[in-house]
Amino acid sequence: MTITNPSAKSQISIADLPDTGLPRDAYTSDDWFAHELDTFFAARWHYVGHVSQLSKAGDFIKFDFADYSVLVTRSRSGEISALHNVCRHRGSRLTDDAKGNCKRAFVCSYHGWSYGHGGELLGAPRMQADFDKSAFPLKRAAVDVWAGLVFVNFSESPATTVAQHLAVADLSKYRLDETKVAWDETKVLKCNWKVLWENGLECYHCAINHPEVSKVIRVERDGPLGTVLPDGDFDWTNDYPLNFESLTIDGKYGVKKFLGDPETPQPNASYLSWHSGSLEVVVLPDYVKITNYKPLDAHTTEARVIGLVNADAQEDVDYDLAHLREVSIATRSQDDALCELIQRGLNSPAYEPGPFNDTYETINRNFKRLYLEAIGR
Amino acid sequence: MTITNPSAKSQISIADLPDTGLPRDAYTSDDWFAHELDTFFAARWHYVGHVSQLSKAGDFIKFDFADYSVLVTRSRSGEISALHNVCRHRGSRLTDDAKGNCKRAFVCSYHGWSYGHGGELLGAPRMQADFDKSAFPLKRAAVDVWAGLVFVNFSESPATTVAQHLAVADLSKYRLDETKVAWDETKVLKCNWKVLWENGLECYHCAINHPEVSKVIRVERDGPLGTVLPDGDFDWTNDYPLNFESLTIDGKYGVKKFLGDPETPQPNASYLSWHSGSLEVVVLPDYVKITNYKPLDAHTTEARVIGLVNADAQEDVDYDLAHLREVSIATRSQDDALCELIQRGLNSPAYEPGPFNDTYETINRNFKRLYLEAIGR
Amino acid sequence: MTITNPSAKSQISIADLPDTGLPRDAYTSDDWFAHELDTFFAARWHYVGHVSQLSKAGDFIKFDFADYSVLVTRSRSGEISALHNVCRHRGSRLTDDAKGNCKRAFVCSYHGWSYGHGGELLGAPRMQADFDKSAFPLKRAAVDVWAGLVFVNFSESPATTVAQHLAVADLSKYRLDETKVAWDETKVLKCNWKVLWENGLECYHCAINHPEVSKVIRVERDGPLGTVLPDGDFDWTNDYPLNFESLTIDGKYGVKKFLGDPETPQPNASYLSWHSGSLEVVVLPDYVKITNYKPLDAHTTEARVIGLVNADAQEDVDYDLAHLREVSIATRSQDDALCELIQRGLNSPAYEPGPFNDTYETINRNFKRLYLEAIGR
Repeated sequence: MTITNPSAKSQISIADLPDTGLPRDAYTSDDWFAHELDTFFAARWHYVGHVSQLSKAGDFIKFDFADYSVLVTRSRSGEISALHNVCRHRGSRLTDDAKGNCKRAFVCSYHGWSYGHGGELLGAPRMQADFDKSAFPLKRAAVDVWAGLVFVNFSESPATTVAQHLAVADLSKYRLDETKVAWDETKVLKCNWKVLWENGLECYHCAINHPEVSKVIRVERDGPLGTVLPDGDFDWTNDYPLNFESLTIDGKYGVKKFLGDPETPQPNASYLSWHSGSLEVVVLPDYVKITNYKPLDAHTTEARVIGLVNADAQEDVDYDLAHLREVSIATRSQDDALCELIQRGLNSPAYEPGPFNDTYETINRNFKRLYLEAIGR
Repeated sequence: MTITNPSAKSQISIADLPDTGLPRDAYTSDDWFAHELDTFFAARWHYVGHVSQLSKAGDFIKFDFADYSVLVTRSRSGEISALHNVCRHRGSRLTDDAKGNCKRAFVCSYHGWSYGHGGELLGAPRMQADFDKSAFPLKRAAVDVWAGLVFVNFSESPATTVAQHLAVADLSKYRLDETKVAWDETKVLKCNWKVLWENGLECYHCAINHPEVSKVIRVERDGPLGTVLPDGDFDWTNDYPLNFESLTIDGKYGVKKFLGDPETPQPNASYLSWHSGSLEVVVLPDYVKITNYKPLDAHTTEARVIGLVNADAQEDVDYDLAHLREVSIATRSQDDALCELIQRGLNSPAYEPGPFNDTYETINRNFKRLYLEAIGR
Repeated sequence: MTITNPSAKSQISIADLPDTGLPRDAYTSDDWFAHELDTFFAARWHYVGHVSQLSKAGDFIKFDFADYSVLVTRSRSGEISALHNVCRHRGSRLTDDAKGNCKRAFVCSYHGWSYGHGGELLGAPRMQADFDKSAFPLKRAAVDVWAGLVFVNFSESPATTVAQHLAVADLSKYRLDETKVAWDETKVLKCNWKVLWENGLECYHCAINHPEVSKVIRVERDGPLGTVLPDGDFDWTNDYPLNFESLTIDGKYGVKKFLGDPETPQPNASYLSWHSGSLEVVVLPDYVKITNYKPLDAHTTEARVIGLVNADAQEDVDYDLAHLREVSIATRSQDDALCELIQRGLNSPAYEPGPFNDTYETINRNFKRLYLEAIGR
């Protein structure tokens, strides 16, 4: 993967960036959080799931974010829609199922109004004769698919497609659209989402916290990370190289069928690609690990980790799920405990933003700048 | 029961009423909720209990609403009082018992100040010689009894008596004052009280949600409900007729002794009477079901269901309680699940108030108008 | 112990003080609580622990208050410091241990920055060459030791030392510095801290609530308490005399080795000394009971009770801990139930501040005046 970001307006000199972390309010204030939802998250692409979860007509995924609930659906003609999960009559949710297959229509359990896969109001039992069904389709959110990953945007007219947003990241040779979900797990943590996010932007903390990662990836560095940073967003290409075959407990491939060409692992696959609001994509030769942070309030975040493998790989034949996930589970657990401890420190009125490490925390410094621009502060 | 509301200033034409439900804030906003408590609930009659629960001198019922706590008491001379459950010395609650009998005095457990059944300060041990006990009676709320039902009003001078407020409803032939409480149960639900309230104002949802009710009551309709709506308040007389004897699982009478004349069921008793803030009274020939919604916060409501039967009816002789309650329990459970699902839908910023059904939701439309008038919005 | 408060500017006439308790907002309002934290608690000395808990180099106690977390440490040279428990790099807490011994350095678990016992930054691994460690010591709070009791103040420059603050209280003959902690227990209560505090300022409630206390201490009175009240703070010397040897369930000494002279009990030791924000010190001939109220929010308080005995007294030889604590546990439990009931009463909009008892509640009246002055209301 190479960084190609033609839309970047300038090269950012690390020396010009501010020298300390975000202020306390950014991690603790309810007002800051509300502002962040309105400015940062309301106009961003949110990762919803993998296109393989929408393979058949009627398949749907429910995506809840803050007070929103959206159903991402596939219709008989193959079109993917993002429909607000709110009946146009009395406002009831149409379903609370996290995912499923809707044969013909989403039928509201309250009064039986029914909607097609594209949101059209099919039936409104016993409404007055002059009632115009065509005026009450489910409201829509924007939806986009990129590299097999499905995204939703609550903005009515998003400024960019996901492809434009992720222009620097070319993951095409890994064929993420030809993968399947091997695991998908969520956990609620007592910290602001940015504590988790910033934790993931650097490996300065890896040597003393992540022995499993430090064994298979070279986490120590000589020079700064991301010397050429994209300007348009928080995307980032990592260059921590693998010492062994893959990010597993023994450093060996965890899946026999590789991404892209199932017979031959892609070289130099230890890339990390960061993008959008709170999504991290780690691409190894044999699997992809997607981590997504969903803010619940200023002090609480839902962390979700999804694993993708070659769609043809069979569990217990081509991979042992426990082995494949072992490093991920250990690392998550280590970072989660750390991040909750950090949040308690940030809560103190005595907290003062500290200096960045010039070698390891250059991405954090860039995130801070772009984040503050995005929220207008 | 016939609708007679001489104080109604005008007949409301359904066609003139607004065409959609309440806005999102009405169901979700803390500010709206605080305003609603101050304007709507602070000046309304609240159902507290049945007069049979205050039959003996010293009997009391505690009624908690929002931050208020009131003791409704009966004195030796028979007078019923509503006394704020707050000692005039350091402010302690006098009792946390939901009901009971207070022989001589309510004695504060903190310093032993004691109050009579009418709130007069009887004793204030070891206070200074010039302390004037008559200056510190318990503060009073307004209290009223109508048809055996006891009501409290936090307003110092309520605009109307309960009888005036409920002028349209003549339930005298059912002799509700000659009944007793057969059951009394509360449950906390995760939705705004108006979701529950509006759910009870229509039977558009009955056919697909309440098979037990739909069997014994004719829930389908030809014309609009409540074509002649009272103007003064939300009172309403239902005209869903019974297909069988009573609202029970088999459609048979649930109590052998009827309301009013114990030997002869009152005809056409399938009336529903709605009134005041959040109280529903369903009168069947053989029992009364009272449902009361007490808002706890914008997203949480306590629902209470009370059953009244003829005071002379004996449990296990004249009625089987499980049989009598079976439809109520099933219906409550169906509506509770629905209402919590609706609230989650209403929380979405994508919710937009939807159109009313001209046949089934005319009462809801009227409620909306009167409610908005009552809160001044 | 005698009251000697030379700094007192005037003698307060009890008759001149306001005649009723604090308003409802003082016990219920979030805004009042925030103001109280900023004005009252931010500049007060907070009791942290006993100096015997910091006897060895590296010993530390963690003290959390509101969002603050402070480590009180003893260095090799014997100096006691109060250090904010917030790493100067990314803000993580250095430790979540309530107490312990730190051999060489507090090492941040995030990136390994390490700090000495006095807060100096000893190491910051792999930071840039020009990074100046001396610019990033842990931030400091004020710390003071008085009579063996350790106090912290979040104000950068406290107006007084603890000794000045407690000038009226001479406890020197009890040698509190030569004691040890016999028990230390916390409990969370659902009431404002001032409900607990005011409860402890009077024994008007003792006769009917605390039979164990009333047996061994003469709680009934003829004249007003604290006729000569100190003006500078809330300090107070009690004069409820002991009827028996000590405050135990049988009135006998609970510890064989006394405070001060281990062979001879100090006479007239039934003094109570109140001071500072929310700390009560009860000194008996054979033990000290310290009670501390830490506000968590307007409606929640952590109560902590610590017992001190002669440092040479041995458990099971010189004292039976269960016997020593029996009255304290019973009284605490009685007061806790009372205070939660009082809070529910104070929540009512019908609460109106009530009159003080001229004999028993004179200290409460004085507290009210000084408290309102301290918070500027």
